[in-house]
Amino acid sequence: MSFYSSLAAFFWQATDSLNTSSDSLYLWIALAVGLLGLIAALVFARSVLSSDTGTADMQRISDAIRQGAEAFMRRQYGTIAMIAVALAIILYLGYRLSPFTAPYANKVVISFLIGATCSALAGQTGMWVSIRSNIRTASAARTSLGKALQIALRGGAVTGLIVVALSLLGVGVLFLLFGGLQHPQETPFKLVGFGFGASLVALFAQLGGGIYTKAADVGADLVGKVEAGIPEDDPRNPAVIADLVGDNVGDCAGRGADIFESTAAENVGAMILGAALYPVFGIKGILFPLIVQAINLIASIIGVSIVHSKEDEDPMHALNRGYYVTSILALVGFAVAVYYMLQGRWWLLGCGICGIITSFLFVRITEYYTETRFRPVQSIAKASLTGPATNIISGIAVGMETPAVPVIVIGCALLFSYYFGTRGLADVSTISEYSKGIYGTAIATMGMLSSAAYILAMDTFGPITDNAGGIIEMSNQPHDIREKTDKLDAAGNTTKALTKGYAIGSASLAAFLLFSAYLEAIHDIVSQRLAAAGEVLPASWSFSNVNLASVPVFVGALLGAMLTYLFSSMAIKAVGRAAQTVIQDVHQQFKENPGIMEGTSQPDYGRCVHIVTGAALKEMVLPGVLAVAMPLAVGVIFRHFSSTFNLKELADSPTIHGIPVNLSGAEAVAALLMVGTISGILLAMLMNNGGGAWDNAKKFIETGQYGGKRSEAHKAAVVGDTVGDPFKDTAGPSLHVLIKLLATVTLVLAPLFV
Amino acid sequence: MSFYSSLAAFFWQATDSLNTSSDSLYLWIALAVGLLGLIAALVFARSVLSSDTGTADMQRISDAIRQGAEAFMRRQYGTIAMIAVALAIILYLGYRLSPFTAPYANKVVISFLIGATCSALAGQTGMWVSIRSNIRTASAARTSLGKALQIALRGGAVTGLIVVALSLLGVGVLFLLFGGLQHPQETPFKLVGFGFGASLVALFAQLGGGIYTKAADVGADLVGKVEAGIPEDDPRNPAVIADLVGDNVGDCAGRGADIFESTAAENVGAMILGAALYPVFGIKGILFPLIVQAINLIASIIGVSIVHSKEDEDPMHALNRGYYVTSILALVGFAVAVYYMLQGRWWLLGCGICGIITSFLFVRITEYYTETRFRPVQSIAKASLTGPATNIISGIAVGMETPAVPVIVIGCALLFSYYFGTRGLADVSTISEYSKGIYGTAIATMGMLSSAAYILAMDTFGPITDNAGGIIEMSNQPHDIREKTDKLDAAGNTTKALTKGYAIGSASLAAFLLFSAYLEAIHDIVSQRLAAAGEVLPASWSFSNVNLASVPVFVGALLGAMLTYLFSSMAIKAVGRAAQTVIQDVHQQFKENPGIMEGTSQPDYGRCVHIVTGAALKEMVLPGVLAVAMPLAVGVIFRHFSSTFNLKELADSPTIHGIPVNLSGAEAVAALLMVGTISGILLAMLMNNGGGAWDNAKKFIETGQYGGKRSEAHKAAVVGDTVGDPFKDTAGPSLHVLIKLLATVTLVLAPLFV
Repeated sequence: MSFYSSLAAFFWQATDSLNTSSDSLYLWIALAVGLLGLIAALVFARSVLSSDTGTADMQRISDAIRQGAEAFMRRQYGTIAMIAVALAIILYLGYRLSPFTAPYANKVVISFLIGATCSALAGQTGMWVSIRSNIRTASAARTSLGKALQIALRGGAVTGLIVVALSLLGVGVLFLLFGGLQHPQETPFKLVGFGFGASLVALFAQLGGGIYTKAADVGADLVGKVEAGIPEDDPRNPAVIADLVGDNVGDCAGRGADIFESTAAENVGAMILGAALYPVFGIKGILFPLIVQAINLIASIIGVSIVHSKEDEDPMHALNRGYYVTSILALVGFAVAVYYMLQGRWWLLGCGICGIITSFLFVRITEYYTETRFRPVQSIAKASLTGPATNIISGIAVGMETPAVPVIVIGCALLFSYYFGTRGLADVSTISEYSKGIYGTAIATMGMLSSAAYILAMDTFGPITDNAGGIIEMSNQPHDIREKTDKLDAAGNTTKALTKGYAIGSASLAAFLLFSAYLEAIHDIVSQRLAAAGEVLPASWSFSNVNLASVPVFVGALLGAMLTYLFSSMAIKAVGRAAQTVIQDVHQQFKENPGIMEGTSQPDYGRCVHIVTGAALKEMVLPGVLAVAMPLAVGVIFRHFSSTFNLKELADSPTIHGIPVNLSGAEAVAALLMVGTISGILLAMLMNNGGGAWDNAKKFIETGQYGGKRSEAHKAAVVGDTVGDPFKDTAGPSLHVLIKLLATVTLVLAPLFV
Repeated sequence: MSFYSSLAAFFWQATDSLNTSSDSLYLWIALAVGLLGLIAALVFARSVLSSDTGTADMQRISDAIRQGAEAFMRRQYGTIAMIAVALAIILYLGYRLSPFTAPYANKVVISFLIGATCSALAGQTGMWVSIRSNIRTASAARTSLGKALQIALRGGAVTGLIVVALSLLGVGVLFLLFGGLQHPQETPFKLVGFGFGASLVALFAQLGGGIYTKAADVGADLVGKVEAGIPEDDPRNPAVIADLVGDNVGDCAGRGADIFESTAAENVGAMILGAALYPVFGIKGILFPLIVQAINLIASIIGVSIVHSKEDEDPMHALNRGYYVTSILALVGFAVAVYYMLQGRWWLLGCGICGIITSFLFVRITEYYTETRFRPVQSIAKASLTGPATNIISGIAVGMETPAVPVIVIGCALLFSYYFGTRGLADVSTISEYSKGIYGTAIATMGMLSSAAYILAMDTFGPITDNAGGIIEMSNQPHDIREKTDKLDAAGNTTKALTKGYAIGSASLAAFLLFSAYLEAIHDIVSQRLAAAGEVLPASWSFSNVNLASVPVFVGALLGAMLTYLFSSMAIKAVGRAAQTVIQDVHQQFKENPGIMEGTSQPDYGRCVHIVTGAALKEMVLPGVLAVAMPLAVGVIFRHFSSTFNLKELADSPTIHGIPVNLSGAEAVAALLMVGTISGILLAMLMNNGGGAWDNAKKFIETGQYGGKRSEAHKAAVVGDTVGDPFKDTAGPSLHVLIKLLATVTLVLAPLFV
């Protein structure tokens, strides 16, 4: 433990010297802790990699998974790189078009590419470790459940730490390079490219991974369980390795990119809002989000380190212990940061606590809707008695019910953190009440994300234990070892579901922050344009009137909501089409090689992996492009046609040489962003929780309820589970990413809409 | 035909004398045409009732349906009456609480009660005729398809005409009574209670009817087809009469109330906007919507009268001919009205044409997504080959795709009609560009609703022919007669689906109009409050800033979207619970009386009808109350707590004695209304079209595709059809009504939020 104690010593020394030294020290601390996070990730990775790798049989299976996952990741990031480069060129040209934006073209494109690269790097390395952790977890399970749990969590922690550390380092280094220490108020606006780069990679990573994982899963199940009558994870099924690969690329790499994007977008957004409070806090208010991420890293490292489990204990208890320790440490760190950086305004700590409570409540609500102990899952299981139709109807009804309480929680979190923000800054008269309140909600979002690294470690724990179970199953290990991995797998399923609840919760809270950042950005742009024309923006004007009663805003809002439906539809259909290619290949393999079913010869796992890889990558392009193209199209079209349609009078715009600035495009996009976000949050909750509830209703019946396995009720529940798969693992998580992409894309494109 | 020619003569004489006479004449014309609509309904009803009523066997079945429907309607409207009276008392007390609103308490409550009564009356009498038309249609089908078609359509036309005529008469008479001819600018605001009364009855009628019809349908199917293995409409099934009753109370009475609400809300909303144009058009601008409804009545009467069908013709062709004639007549009438009432500003006729084109496109898009000829339904049918799970997934994917094109159509309609509005009034300098544009969108909505009576006749045609088919089936008529009623039934299914598309389209367009009316109402209230305090509202101020970036607005928006999900969830669950009561009763009847299945003794149809009636009425209360209570709660809570949460600075409010008017509640409700409407429109499209597509995918397979009836694919498709039932017949149509209820309830409660 000498490593951790020296870490703690460093932290205390650093904070101790803060009162006296220059404010820029905070930036250096944040960067140092970012590096430290990477080092800790390395330490965890080494500790995992030094573990035993089991029998040759186990290794053979693990190698196949590893190769499949690596092949997919290589090709996926190859495709994403091409899309990113194409977009960088478009972005560059778009910015060069106008004399106002041309000076920023380089910075935006550079930060975009760095954001994309960091996001890809985080996904790749986290994945590299987790596909090596699965076999080691499986091997450890042969001797000790506690040891296996530790390996799986530490393997997951590598992803968690790298994601948060790279996001912190990326934003911090860019801030430094773009002259943040010299011009702290202007620099945050130049970082928006970073968030967009991160979001773009995240969108395609989540879409591609999500389509891959469910196409392989649905394809393997339909041919294996339904047609050939062989159990799950049976080595005779040619799609079984593709299925195990899918757990990694979907859950692990996908969610990693998702959280990377959340923290990156939140950092940039909160720094933009911090810039509005420059008169109060100086650079400290701008650097505060970075320090919170640093605290997150340290708290999570400690949280992961202390997790040990007794042999007979429920693994969830051990994981929850780590979560509570992380949360408490993060809270303490938050308080210290408020004391040193925000002038000890304790009402603002209240905002952070709002965020932490919200994240806790979201996890609990998700639990209620997706665990077998509670009414919703049981009602679906009961409805399965009258067949698949009633199972589906009751699952959808449960899914539609799920947004109710979370929406109220988000509403309360926003109201209270807004209020705490205004109270915390009550004595400041140089900024508006509105800016105070909004900064309060930003702090709440930071609070919510202050345990992100640990949460992500718990999330990646899921696919690692799932794979470990698969390896044990396929290498025919004794039954008592399988029981151990089943325990871990069950805990992994729970953590996966809960982190989805966390992800959507943080997305909802961050949405408001990002939206406010967009309005700030438009305000900044308008004031620059006026300054360039030698005029001055009236102090009283603010671009905060996204007036739902104006036609472009209403149409933008309609289009935003529609986008989330169309995007989900595309994602779901993509899974269906990709699954068809899996089914065809498996049929062909069975026909070409009858020895497979007799168990005398091995199927060609690689071919199946290859095919579903190609299908998933092809299918991810269209919905991804739609998500980027639509805000761009709406903004440009409304800007362009606003005079054609006589819309110009609507925006209460300042004038340049007597001509009002054309804000129709900016307004329509604001509405698209805002209402798209609201609709996306609700749809994602419907699909995540509905899917999770269907899944567990099936598991509930498998425990012997309503006739148990092989009963008619079970058959009906399997239908529900299959329907829920693309909901909860493809469309739902992709919607999280879409919401944040909308926010970052609008931030980046904002200058083109005015 | 002498009746129709005298009608036409009357119309031309009246328009001829308009140029010279007083403006109030328009009101008298509207009222006269409203009466004429009632008389025409009476004529159609007499012509239907004088037809032959078939054999004693047929009459026995028809009588059972009639008694069941009448019993349901009696109890349903009894329950609704109690709720309405309770709400009237609350409304009265709420208005009496404040000195500002107290003087209006009587008028609001009276117009509320009259709106509710007219709506109930329209539903009741329309229903009275349609349950008498089914037997006569069945009887006529024994000799002539054309004759049967005519009876069914004229039976439906009674509903259509009564609905539109009562809506016109209600609004017109109240306008007259409340002194509209003396104070034309103020009176429209006093009519808001009428729209709310209509909406309230519509919500409960649609919810109760929708739950009833699907509970009976699902219950009858699950026991009959699935368990007992008897065909649909088999007289041995005790729930079969309840099922046929359901078609009437759900489709006929429910949609009647829906369209009544649409026209009432649109009339009142458009009159409020017309008041803003008083300087230009005087009272004519306010009365214009009433005259458009009068034109609608006349055009529809003629359209229905000319429908004749040859024996070998597809009934849809004949129905479409009538629709085209109605549309063209409505367009001509519209042009005449624009000439006489809107100073011949032909750009405004363009707005009306926008609306007519929109309604046409919506019907065509609905056709594309729900008819077997096109890709969407065929893709669902194909997905059924791999089982119910893929059928469901592809149905949901189709449903989620459906809002895309309609949203673009609505967006274009709004932009163009806004533009035409500004062009049409370009020379007027006394009103803002915004008011001109908004009036343009209002005229587009009138255009869209200008064939409502005919559309409603086509819609009610659906349950009449469905029932006629059931009567023929249950009375064991020869096969060739069944073929005729099957043809009519197929046309009825199509018209039902298309009118749902029309209803949601008009709701989307009307949403914008109603939202603007709400903003006008708030503006009116604020100016009254200031006047009472002896201050003057600055001319530049308008309550049109529903700023999505403010906390109460964002939270209101989230809550609005959430409401549509929770409401749908409740409606769907209600169907499930009510269906369970049907299943239990059927099981018990089979057990108590084994002679039923042997065909030796008759089941107790009435008991089943009685049970499902009670269940549906119980289940409709909770979602209905939620819909009314939530806007009220949000408005009052945000108004009350805005100072607690330091929100007061947000609204850019005028001041009274230096204190800003508290508009947080009004803003939050505006966002709830607007985003709730957007979310509701999309969800309703998803459910209506998804449900319709599932239904027809099953029918497509039944024509022999993918293995035909009794194949595995067919079984899978039946699952999809059952899932789609509560979507398309309960939750979807109830959402239409909910959207409009939100608009009218916020209009009525507006004074309580300020």
